[in-house]
Amino acid sequence: MRPRHSDVRLAALPDRLDTNRSGRDMPRLVMKFGGTSVANVDRIRNVARHVAREVAAGYDVAVVVSAMSGKTNELVGWVKDANTLYDEAEYDTVVASGEQVTSGLLAVALRKDGIKARSWQGWQIPIETSDAHGSARIAGIDGANLDAGFKRGEVAVISGFQGIHAETGRITTLGRGGSDTSAVAVAAAIGAERCDIYTDVDGVYTTDPRVVPKAKRMERVTFEEMLEMASLGAKVLQVRSVELAMVHRVPTTVRSSFDPPDAARPGTLICDEDDIVEQQIITGIAFSKDEAQITLRAVKDSPGVAAAIFGPLADANINVDMIIQTVSGDQSTTDMTFTVPTADYERTRTILDGQRETIGYGQIEGATDVVKVSAIGVGMRSHAGVAAKAFRALAQKGINIRAITTSEIKFSVLIDAAYTELAVRTLHSLYGLDQA
Amino acid sequence: MRPRHSDVRLAALPDRLDTNRSGRDMPRLVMKFGGTSVANVDRIRNVARHVAREVAAGYDVAVVVSAMSGKTNELVGWVKDANTLYDEAEYDTVVASGEQVTSGLLAVALRKDGIKARSWQGWQIPIETSDAHGSARIAGIDGANLDAGFKRGEVAVISGFQGIHAETGRITTLGRGGSDTSAVAVAAAIGAERCDIYTDVDGVYTTDPRVVPKAKRMERVTFEEMLEMASLGAKVLQVRSVELAMVHRVPTTVRSSFDPPDAARPGTLICDEDDIVEQQIITGIAFSKDEAQITLRAVKDSPGVAAAIFGPLADANINVDMIIQTVSGDQSTTDMTFTVPTADYERTRTILDGQRETIGYGQIEGATDVVKVSAIGVGMRSHAGVAAKAFRALAQKGINIRAITTSEIKFSVLIDAAYTELAVRTLHSLYGLDQA
Repeated sequence: MRPRHSDVRLAALPDRLDTNRSGRDMPRLVMKFGGTSVANVDRIRNVARHVAREVAAGYDVAVVVSAMSGKTNELVGWVKDANTLYDEAEYDTVVASGEQVTSGLLAVALRKDGIKARSWQGWQIPIETSDAHGSARIAGIDGANLDAGFKRGEVAVISGFQGIHAETGRITTLGRGGSDTSAVAVAAAIGAERCDIYTDVDGVYTTDPRVVPKAKRMERVTFEEMLEMASLGAKVLQVRSVELAMVHRVPTTVRSSFDPPDAARPGTLICDEDDIVEQQIITGIAFSKDEAQITLRAVKDSPGVAAAIFGPLADANINVDMIIQTVSGDQSTTDMTFTVPTADYERTRTILDGQRETIGYGQIEGATDVVKVSAIGVGMRSHAGVAAKAFRALAQKGINIRAITTSEIKFSVLIDAAYTELAVRTLHSLYGLDQA
Repeated sequence: MRPRHSDVRLAALPDRLDTNRSGRDMPRLVMKFGGTSVANVDRIRNVARHVAREVAAGYDVAVVVSAMSGKTNELVGWVKDANTLYDEAEYDTVVASGEQVTSGLLAVALRKDGIKARSWQGWQIPIETSDAHGSARIAGIDGANLDAGFKRGEVAVISGFQGIHAETGRITTLGRGGSDTSAVAVAAAIGAERCDIYTDVDGVYTTDPRVVPKAKRMERVTFEEMLEMASLGAKVLQVRSVELAMVHRVPTTVRSSFDPPDAARPGTLICDEDDIVEQQIITGIAFSKDEAQITLRAVKDSPGVAAAIFGPLADANINVDMIIQTVSGDQSTTDMTFTVPTADYERTRTILDGQRETIGYGQIEGATDVVKVSAIGVGMRSHAGVAAKAFRALAQKGINIRAITTSEIKFSVLIDAAYTELAVRTLHSLYGLDQA
């Protein structure tokens, strides 16, 4: 078994778990099913058959489930109808009920197939979290109750997305998509061999197949690459869950719950770089329309000007992403371009309007019809000129690059939204990702 | 404050509660709202206004809520779809989610009206119960958390119908209508001045107004009478909740949640006999169609024959109600007539068929088109001939009495179902209950 890292309290468990595991040989598996996979009782019974397959294969299984699709939205709607200025703790109490229903129903369905199972709510395990209701972070999972269940031969059916804040004893939720994070955290806590995320797609693709029909399903992708992809707009997994999988080295797959239970394909494995034999230079192309561009013209080029611009935005919890500073004609002023999430665009302009005197700039410009296209691959580390090749290819297609950022394993360009498809297809071909 | 009795663990609390109360003068009130009263967000906001009225009147308020009407049935349906032979503990997990939603929503709605409030699930208080999933009994309520909330000036919004079994840590439910019981138990545990059960009717009537248009709403009724009425077919309160109110002497009202919050009528008060100045001889007429009649003809009249008949039925958890033994013509055998719940009729016949040799009877007869009509009143204790008057009146109307049972404060007759309305109206007039 892989060692688990120790930067969250999850890691307080390995000794006990290892001891426990040494006494018996059943490997452990976490299976996570999202809202569309448990949308109704028929689908829940189908999920039970997927679980039965893994039980038959000799695993101690923990299943993490989301609410039936549509249910969370319905509950959120009711909370907002009751009071637009709702209390976040009550919001969590209401919406967490969705997963409670699914976990109970799946336990019932499993027993129909002759499989011992019981449901676990976040507070019963417990899955302890921070008190940031609505977007809580997992602080620790006590695996003792789950261990005892495995010893009784039970499948653990766990409500995802939820936990408990120990001091207040109140139900918390992890925010949208939090069930992925629950699943990976449970896998780390119980020392699972793998965490399988079942969803409505059959894996992670080199890019969005709706944009590039030649997109390929990847067999394997590194944690680091998957983290960049999730951060850069690929919606298949919650960013936090990939971080957690990377930190705790939990091999994680993305696979389809709509495959027949007796002929389920393996999906895409997210794993260590060492576990991938033939690594591509570029593994995938991601894009995000959730970007807006702001340009401040004729900014006084003096020390502290960057702090004057970005300080107030940080105070307002606005994440600034790509930043470019260009020297203007007369040399005494500069232009400053950067991006913010589209949802924060108006707020950003308002804040900067208010700071005009303090910052000292000539004019403010902005654009929301822009897109950030990114190429990701751990192979970039050892290959020079990977990005330069892309800039040339995009220029040849007449695509104007408004901003560029790079990191060790990815680069991103900001372009006009109208060129999204052209740019993504160009890069997808350029790096040899097209399906044969 | 009235003393609380000590036959359940609820009573472990009074000392602490009394001490606590001596430091402050806020009286406490429990308000319970059923499914139709919280059927949607608009109605939940209406409930918030009822609560606001009592807070303004100076009460520390605990509100007990049911699931939105229809919700429990939906959840039960899903459980049965998933597996007809479902696990009761999972059933409880799934259905308890309904109350969780309502409690969160009402807390949110109260805050909109500027009232501090928080939701409490059964496991958070905790409300401890037996492990009889699906029909658990309350074993004890720890009032400490609720006390602390009242000190913070919070309204406690409590999910009814549910609790937790301490040893397993699993969610339990009290069975249909259990929220009434939750409310009375909470009232006893926190030393509430009163428990107000808000429902879709404006009180308890002398009989079913759909059968007797001249039925009157009672202003007051004793615990004992209400207990008989609930047991004998008046559906307004769960029997268990009335028992609990009687044992703990919790003055309880039944009143309408559909009254305007600023002009809510007091409803019917269920209270001690001492608190009722002018007591009627008969207070109400109840009837139940949930009765089936069994007659065994030519039963050998030997010692132990009753045990031979009723032993196997008791073993099968069948409640036998009215029992009459009549001597037959030839003196050596008797006829034995009794009633069982309609739902157990077929099962009863099957069991008795199987016991024919052992019991030794000639023939078995039965009828399901019968009704039990009952007259209830504590005044019967001090007035002779109350029942005899009824038998005469029914005979005059040509109604044949199949069986009779009496107790200290009620008598019941079993008659043909076709005569239900005539019998109920006759008795209602006979005892002066008709509205002027």
